[in-house]
Amino acid sequence: MKLNKQVVRPLAAILAALPFAVAFAQVSPDKTPHAGPEVKYQAGASPLASEEMHQNINPKAPPMTKAEFDRAKQIYFERCAGCHGVLRKGATGKPLTPDITLAKGTDYLKVFIAYGSPAGMPNWQTSGDLTEKEVDMMARYIQQEPPTPPEFGIKEMEATWKDIIPVAKRPTRKMNNYNIANIFSTTLRDSGEVALIDGDTKKIINIVKTGYAVHISRISASGRYLYVIGRDARLNLIDLWMEKPDNVAEIKIGLEARSVETSKYKGFEDKYAVAGSYWPPQFVLMEGDTLKPLKIVSTRGMTVDNEYHPEPRVASIVASHFNPEFVINAKETGKIYLVNYKDINNLKTTTLDAAKFLHDGGFDSTGRYFMVAANASNKIAVVDTKEGKLASIVDVGKTPHPGRGANFNHPKFGPVWATSHLGDETISMIGTDPVKHKAQAWKVVATVKGQGGGSLFIKTHPKSKNLWVDTPLHPDAKVSQSVAVYDINNLDKGFEVLPIAEWANLGEGAKRVVQPEYNKAGDEVWFSVWNAKDKVSAVVVVDDKTRKLKTVIKDPRLITPTGKFNVNNTQHDVY
Amino acid sequence: MKLNKQVVRPLAAILAALPFAVAFAQVSPDKTPHAGPEVKYQAGASPLASEEMHQNINPKAPPMTKAEFDRAKQIYFERCAGCHGVLRKGATGKPLTPDITLAKGTDYLKVFIAYGSPAGMPNWQTSGDLTEKEVDMMARYIQQEPPTPPEFGIKEMEATWKDIIPVAKRPTRKMNNYNIANIFSTTLRDSGEVALIDGDTKKIINIVKTGYAVHISRISASGRYLYVIGRDARLNLIDLWMEKPDNVAEIKIGLEARSVETSKYKGFEDKYAVAGSYWPPQFVLMEGDTLKPLKIVSTRGMTVDNEYHPEPRVASIVASHFNPEFVINAKETGKIYLVNYKDINNLKTTTLDAAKFLHDGGFDSTGRYFMVAANASNKIAVVDTKEGKLASIVDVGKTPHPGRGANFNHPKFGPVWATSHLGDETISMIGTDPVKHKAQAWKVVATVKGQGGGSLFIKTHPKSKNLWVDTPLHPDAKVSQSVAVYDINNLDKGFEVLPIAEWANLGEGAKRVVQPEYNKAGDEVWFSVWNAKDKVSAVVVVDDKTRKLKTVIKDPRLITPTGKFNVNNTQHDVY
Repeated sequence: MKLNKQVVRPLAAILAALPFAVAFAQVSPDKTPHAGPEVKYQAGASPLASEEMHQNINPKAPPMTKAEFDRAKQIYFERCAGCHGVLRKGATGKPLTPDITLAKGTDYLKVFIAYGSPAGMPNWQTSGDLTEKEVDMMARYIQQEPPTPPEFGIKEMEATWKDIIPVAKRPTRKMNNYNIANIFSTTLRDSGEVALIDGDTKKIINIVKTGYAVHISRISASGRYLYVIGRDARLNLIDLWMEKPDNVAEIKIGLEARSVETSKYKGFEDKYAVAGSYWPPQFVLMEGDTLKPLKIVSTRGMTVDNEYHPEPRVASIVASHFNPEFVINAKETGKIYLVNYKDINNLKTTTLDAAKFLHDGGFDSTGRYFMVAANASNKIAVVDTKEGKLASIVDVGKTPHPGRGANFNHPKFGPVWATSHLGDETISMIGTDPVKHKAQAWKVVATVKGQGGGSLFIKTHPKSKNLWVDTPLHPDAKVSQSVAVYDINNLDKGFEVLPIAEWANLGEGAKRVVQPEYNKAGDEVWFSVWNAKDKVSAVVVVDDKTRKLKTVIKDPRLITPTGKFNVNNTQHDVY
Repeated sequence: MKLNKQVVRPLAAILAALPFAVAFAQVSPDKTPHAGPEVKYQAGASPLASEEMHQNINPKAPPMTKAEFDRAKQIYFERCAGCHGVLRKGATGKPLTPDITLAKGTDYLKVFIAYGSPAGMPNWQTSGDLTEKEVDMMARYIQQEPPTPPEFGIKEMEATWKDIIPVAKRPTRKMNNYNIANIFSTTLRDSGEVALIDGDTKKIINIVKTGYAVHISRISASGRYLYVIGRDARLNLIDLWMEKPDNVAEIKIGLEARSVETSKYKGFEDKYAVAGSYWPPQFVLMEGDTLKPLKIVSTRGMTVDNEYHPEPRVASIVASHFNPEFVINAKETGKIYLVNYKDINNLKTTTLDAAKFLHDGGFDSTGRYFMVAANASNKIAVVDTKEGKLASIVDVGKTPHPGRGANFNHPKFGPVWATSHLGDETISMIGTDPVKHKAQAWKVVATVKGQGGGSLFIKTHPKSKNLWVDTPLHPDAKVSQSVAVYDINNLDKGFEVLPIAEWANLGEGAKRVVQPEYNKAGDEVWFSVWNAKDKVSAVVVVDDKTRKLKTVIKDPRLITPTGKFNVNNTQHDVY
């Protein structure tokens, strides 16, 4: 089916800016996700309200008071910057620099902000998110010069760095009886926490305080350390060897962030961590076991079209298995950096020209090729991490959003890596074996249709014959609250629909079903049933072989669960 | 002797920003170096007067009209940006951002601008460079938000690119009888030209139109192509095989620039050119024989102290002989980039953390180690271009300015590379042989005193036993108009002074003696006697063995000669 543009594109527009452990405040029943007491990102603490900011009054723009300017600045960062960019240069949303906004005028802008547009702008006033007065204020604000957000260098990072439990005081062996390889680190989006859930017993081990809306969890090469990063750029290091696993170090690495990774090459296990930020546009190398910041590298620079971009946000980061390198993706420029951590004082970097708007991705089944979505370019870039070069760029459907993607053996075409899409209902399978299936390599060898657009994650496991595709952003509740599952050996047969949210039996609320994640054994699939902050959410566990409900994990502490990361599968890039 | 601070520091401050083929408008009798008809950088063509610029009126700053703002912007770029930075973040001069200037106030700033300061600020009003009204305007201007100068991406470069004589229409063999290996490419600073002077006959072969104040000349690996770059970022490619060597291609690579180089590694001879700009802070890789721009890389990023710098200007660039790499020095960040041109689509770069304010430098006698001055840090950084890492950082005297430096065998300490200094009278010799003279390697093994500070260039030749040290920026005319020469085998004996300007017999004018340069055979040393634009200048040729005058090259076309680059010595890094 084709999606109704009117409904879906605003979702896609927002999603592309808030991806992975997803946020869509304007479609959630909870209209004020940033205002609650549990939220780490409190109004007074907003980095953009700080005194470092200066106000440029543009004489051509309609006047506003200092108080209005400061309040508008804060709303802009919370509501608008995700799509339009911290510097208003445009990203998923259109540019909002004064040369453009002044020409539109206050009245036009007010209508646009209040009622939204079919092209993706949310209806901020009629949705109840902003008052009429606030809409007027925002229309005037965006005609002013964009204030430059502050930089965040080594001094600012060091000031936030907490070595909570120094290495010398940590356990020297595992002090608990958990099967830590089967723990699920589960983002509790709106409470600013992760739940560590025991994959064997389905019991909550601990609720750990973290940044707001943790975007991803990553596991160190040894499997001991868990890294989680919030959208507010707070990075936490959790030691899974503790009797009760908890934070041992913390740092804030910028104003807004999405990605963290840890060194996995032999000889460098657990040695380095790296985190990338949206603002400032940069990444930082840290000590793996303390988060002490060591070196910051800016991503400001040229796009693949050789034009300067001031705000190339750092999207996904993965650790190479073939070289002592991190693969770091800069969204707006379309550049992929292979950053060699062998000698960080003489830092070797290979910069690949991929395609603009790089976002999320994962490895092929061999771990050699990294497949990354250039989402607004409708492409998948393929990085050969062994040779350190771009292997190919593959055209796929509209706005691919693979998460880490899904690897399996296609019965006809051999090894493939698959992605679903935000912008259409297809699932694209790309051949990944340039040796034994050369003709298929880096080509879309097959596509199947799913329940619809608005998909965020696709998943399988080497031990499974199922391929799971979620659709949490589909406008039809029946679709967003269920999941499609395919038999890999009979893909053309179509999909079965499992009513996951119905199985959770949660009562009222939006209850979007998001992110299938396997357990270590590959015989269970876990889904988040993500309800509003003041409603009941759950995690639903499905038996992979029978496709039947196995159990529902419910707990009052499971507030707005989204992404789940199984320790073993994340540690070894199994997906 | 110690220099009078009052006099020398303004010179040093300006010099550090306008180095190599040097400019010091405020000490030259010619007070309007940018106003003459031959000047490429005409008022109306100033890139900062373009419509792309926007004016931010800071409500706290004293008012000014749009016309005043635009005129002040132009004066700022011409007079102030060299020291204070295009973005006013400070460089050799202090930062001039509104948070600082508003606190000082208009009256204070006016006095400062009018009368200068012992710390290095020129006396713009009492010198006659600016009127009282202009000083008042500039005092108000620097309290406004600095306007952002425009970017200069691939489109802007392509729009300026001229493939004057396409490769197919160029000669296929040398069409003249010149001994091109002994041509001297001589910067005619104020006329925006280079003079190609026949080193054998001392006759001018051609006067070639170029950018304004050509900073350096570089020769392609084959010796055929000559690259010259002006301060206005105009880059010209001259074909020495033509019957009358002249421009075959031209491009503007930014708004302000200093450096160009050409690929020298075997298999890549004449294949690539690279040019670095001050604004925008970036470098561009081009086709070596056409100057077609291929790839732009920004240098905006972190300093060696891990703090963001918005304007890391590209200083010197050299081509490695040991790897297919350019060595590119970013001034404000202190980062050295080893940019590998083997595969420019998967661009490998090694980033070395050296020391802030990188400037000029040259290779040791083996061509393996690149010695570069971090001038305001009083250090020389040593790059091992074979291993791709920093070998050492050496403390030297105040504000080293080596040019390319001088290599010779010290009778006691073995191979050394020497630099003179802008800020003191010493000449420092650094051991460069880590194998046979390990204890001396990367240490200042000896120093001698010269005529005084204000030195820009030092020179010797493998076939010579003389070491020449100029002092064009010394306040004493006797010193600035002469040169010191040492016997390398008797350094402690002191120096002999040769009255080069007197030998030229030019009549009135400042007549600074600048930049010793050897001929190919190493038996002649050439000096520029640089007079004002409306006065007579000359090039003086000295017999190296006898230290006697050999000849004076005088010609009405030799307007303001400064840097001279012998084809053979530049091509093979002989110095």
